[in-house]
Amino acid sequence: MPEFRILKKDRNTRARAGILKTAHGVIHTPAFVPVATKGALRGISFENANKFGGDIFMVNTFHFYVDGKYKLVKKFGGLHEFLNIGYPLMTDSGGFQVFSLGFGLEHGVGKISNMFPGENRPGQHPKDNPALKKKNLVKITEEGAEFKYYKNGKKLFLDAETSIKTQKQLGADIIFAFDECTSPLSDYEYTKMSIDRTHRWAVRSLKEFEKGPKTDQGMMGIIQGGEFKDLREKAVEFVSSLPFFGFGIGGPLGQSKKDMHKILDWTLPILPESKPKHLLGIGDVDDIFNGVERGIDTFDCVNPTRLARHGTALTHGGRISLKSGRYVNSKEPVDKKCGCRICQNYSRAYVSSLLRDWEIYGVMLLVEHNLFYMLNLMREIRQAIKDGKFGELRRKYLK
Amino acid sequence: MPEFRILKKDRNTRARAGILKTAHGVIHTPAFVPVATKGALRGISFENANKFGGDIFMVNTFHFYVDGKYKLVKKFGGLHEFLNIGYPLMTDSGGFQVFSLGFGLEHGVGKISNMFPGENRPGQHPKDNPALKKKNLVKITEEGAEFKYYKNGKKLFLDAETSIKTQKQLGADIIFAFDECTSPLSDYEYTKMSIDRTHRWAVRSLKEFEKGPKTDQGMMGIIQGGEFKDLREKAVEFVSSLPFFGFGIGGPLGQSKKDMHKILDWTLPILPESKPKHLLGIGDVDDIFNGVERGIDTFDCVNPTRLARHGTALTHGGRISLKSGRYVNSKEPVDKKCGCRICQNYSRAYVSSLLRDWEIYGVMLLVEHNLFYMLNLMREIRQAIKDGKFGELRRKYLK
Repeated sequence: MPEFRILKKDRNTRARAGILKTAHGVIHTPAFVPVATKGALRGISFENANKFGGDIFMVNTFHFYVDGKYKLVKKFGGLHEFLNIGYPLMTDSGGFQVFSLGFGLEHGVGKISNMFPGENRPGQHPKDNPALKKKNLVKITEEGAEFKYYKNGKKLFLDAETSIKTQKQLGADIIFAFDECTSPLSDYEYTKMSIDRTHRWAVRSLKEFEKGPKTDQGMMGIIQGGEFKDLREKAVEFVSSLPFFGFGIGGPLGQSKKDMHKILDWTLPILPESKPKHLLGIGDVDDIFNGVERGIDTFDCVNPTRLARHGTALTHGGRISLKSGRYVNSKEPVDKKCGCRICQNYSRAYVSSLLRDWEIYGVMLLVEHNLFYMLNLMREIRQAIKDGKFGELRRKYLK
Repeated sequence: MPEFRILKKDRNTRARAGILKTAHGVIHTPAFVPVATKGALRGISFENANKFGGDIFMVNTFHFYVDGKYKLVKKFGGLHEFLNIGYPLMTDSGGFQVFSLGFGLEHGVGKISNMFPGENRPGQHPKDNPALKKKNLVKITEEGAEFKYYKNGKKLFLDAETSIKTQKQLGADIIFAFDECTSPLSDYEYTKMSIDRTHRWAVRSLKEFEKGPKTDQGMMGIIQGGEFKDLREKAVEFVSSLPFFGFGIGGPLGQSKKDMHKILDWTLPILPESKPKHLLGIGDVDDIFNGVERGIDTFDCVNPTRLARHGTALTHGGRISLKSGRYVNSKEPVDKKCGCRICQNYSRAYVSSLLRDWEIYGVMLLVEHNLFYMLNLMREIRQAIKDGKFGELRRKYLK
C-alpha cells in the first residue's frame, strides 16, 4: 500500500504539500497526473514528461477493458512491463467512460454541464440544444453497467468486480473503486438512488480488491453526489468510513466552475485530512489553484496534450491559439516566461507554421511546452506552499 | 561553396565513401537525407535524427514558395534560423512538385510509373486505369511553370529565377537547378523537347545563382531524359559542361526499378567522377544498395517517416506491418537486429497496440526506429566501403 505524508500546510487555505510513496517511486504533491489514455502520452515520451516533473501517469482502465487488451497486459506482467516504464501509475475505474457513453451522450454534456463562461447562453447550453443529445448506449443496473462498445457494437458489461480485477491485472500503483458518474443534468432523485448504488459498488470494489495475494496498490474511493449538498455529505460520510487509501472527487461537478468550487467546499473539509485526495479529470490552471487551496493533492487531465493537438498553448499570459493567423510572423517564443526547450529554441512563427500545416512535429513541440507548463506550475505551487507564498503565486497566475 | 572529397572507392563497383564539407558541417557519404518537407521531420526532432547519423536534411522549396512562407523565412535570415538548427540542409528546386501537379495527376503516376513487382498487372498500371488520371493543373512554357495552388486555387508561377532566388533566401547548403521532371509516360519527342528546355533553365539557374554576393551554397544540376539512353547521355554531356557543384539524377526513372538501374548505368559512369551525385526522391533499402554501387553519394526520401505513419517497420527481415493483427501479442522487439532505443525497450505488441489505436506516440516510436534503421544502414555501408566489404554487406541485406 502506498503511503501519504503531509509535509507542509498553507496558513490561509487548505492547501498542503505532501509526498506520496508508491512501489514505483515518490510523487510530490500537489501533483498533476498527465493522462496516457491508451498507454501513451499523446505526443511525448514518458521519459521526457518525467524529466519535467511528471511523477505519475494516468491510464484509462476502460480502454484496456473494452478491447480485451488487459489480458495482453496481464501476460506481460502489468502495465509497467507492457509500457516498459518504472514510473508510478494510476488507473481509473471506467465509471467516467461509462457516463460518457450513457448520460454524456443522452444529455450532450461533460463533467461540468456548462463550460461557457457566460453561462446559459441560449443554444449553447445542452438543455437548450437538442442537437447535442445522442442515444444513451448504457444500461445501468444494481449489478453494473451494460453498454455497447462503439467500435464494434459488441455488448460489454462492467461492474465493480470486473473493474477491480482489471485494475489489479493492470497493476497501477493507485486505482479507483467502481462508481457511477451521474450527469450534471441528473435530478436529485436519480442522484440519491445512484450514490446509494455507488456505495454498494464501493463495498464490492473493496471486497474484490482484498481478494487474493496482497498487492502494492492503493485504492481510492470516489465521492459522488452531483451538486446536492446533502448527497455529497452523505457520500463523504459513507465512503470515508471504508478503509480506502484515499479519495477521488468524482463528477458531475455542477453547471459551472462555481458549482465545482461549492462541491469541493462541501466535501473536502469533512474528508479525513491525512488521506490523499484526487480531483478526477479536472486540470485547467484556475482549477488547479482552486482545487489545491481546497485541499486537493492530485489532478489528472488530458488538457495539456489535447489543447496542444488543437494548437492551443498555455502561457503565463493566458491561452493562445497558435493555429490562428495571429502569430505567423512572431519571432517571440511561445511563452516568454517559460523555461522549456520549446520556448528556449523556437519562435511562435515556427510552431504556428507547423501547426497550420498540420505537421505532427508542431503538435509534439506544443505538447512538450504545455506539459512542461503544467508540471512547472505544480513545482511552483509546491514550493510556494513550502515557502508560505501560495496566495502570492495564485495572484500571479490568476490576475 | 561546399567541398566534396572521395575517401575510398570500392574495388568491384562504383561505390565510394566520401566527405561533403558545408558551411554547416560535414556530411559522410553515401548519406541518406531525411526529408523535412515543410520544415520539420514528421514525428522526430532534427536533434534526434542527427544523433542517429542524419548529417543533412532536405526541405522542399515548393512548399515554402506556394504560400509565400519563404518571405517569412527570409526575415528570419534563412531556414537555419527559422528552424533554429545548425545542420546542413538541402532544398530541391520545386520541379518535382510541379510534375506531381501536372503530368503526375494527368497520368496518375509517380517518379517510377509502375511500382508493382509483377509489372503491368491489368488495372493497376496507370495506363490501364483511367480512374487514376486527374486534371493536369500545370502549364509549362519556355518561361517556366504556371500552376494552380491546390489549397486556394490561386495561380502561381515558378521559373528558374524564382526557384533559385527562393532557394538563396532559404539558404540551404546544397540547392538544385530548376528542371522539368517529365512523366514516366512522356514519349521520346516530348522528353527531347523538355530536356532542351531544362538545359536552358539550368543556364538560367546558374546565372541567377551567381547574381549578387557570393554565398556558401553549392548548386547541383539535374540530369533528366526519362528512360531514353541518348537523351540521358545528352543531358549528362550538357549539364556536366556547366560549373555545377554536383549533379542530381532526376525522375522519371522508368517503368520499374530495373529501368531505374539502367538509367543510373547510362548516366553515372559518364558524369565527372570527382563530383557528388544525388538520387532525387529515392530511398528503399534495395535502391540504396543499387544506387551506391553505381556511384550515388546522397539519397533523399520520405520513406522512413511515411512508412512509419502507415504502420510499416523496416527490419533486417524485410518490411513488416505493425498495424496488421499479426504482432499484437509479440514480446519481440520491432527488429531483433536493430540497436535503436525502440528495439531496445519496446515490444512489437506495444508499438502495434499504439498504432492500431491511432496513437501519435506509436508513430513517433516507429519513425524513430525507421529513421535509425536507414541512418544505421548508411553507416554500415560507409564502413563496408572503407573495409572493402560492400558486396558482403549488400548480400547480407538483399538476400
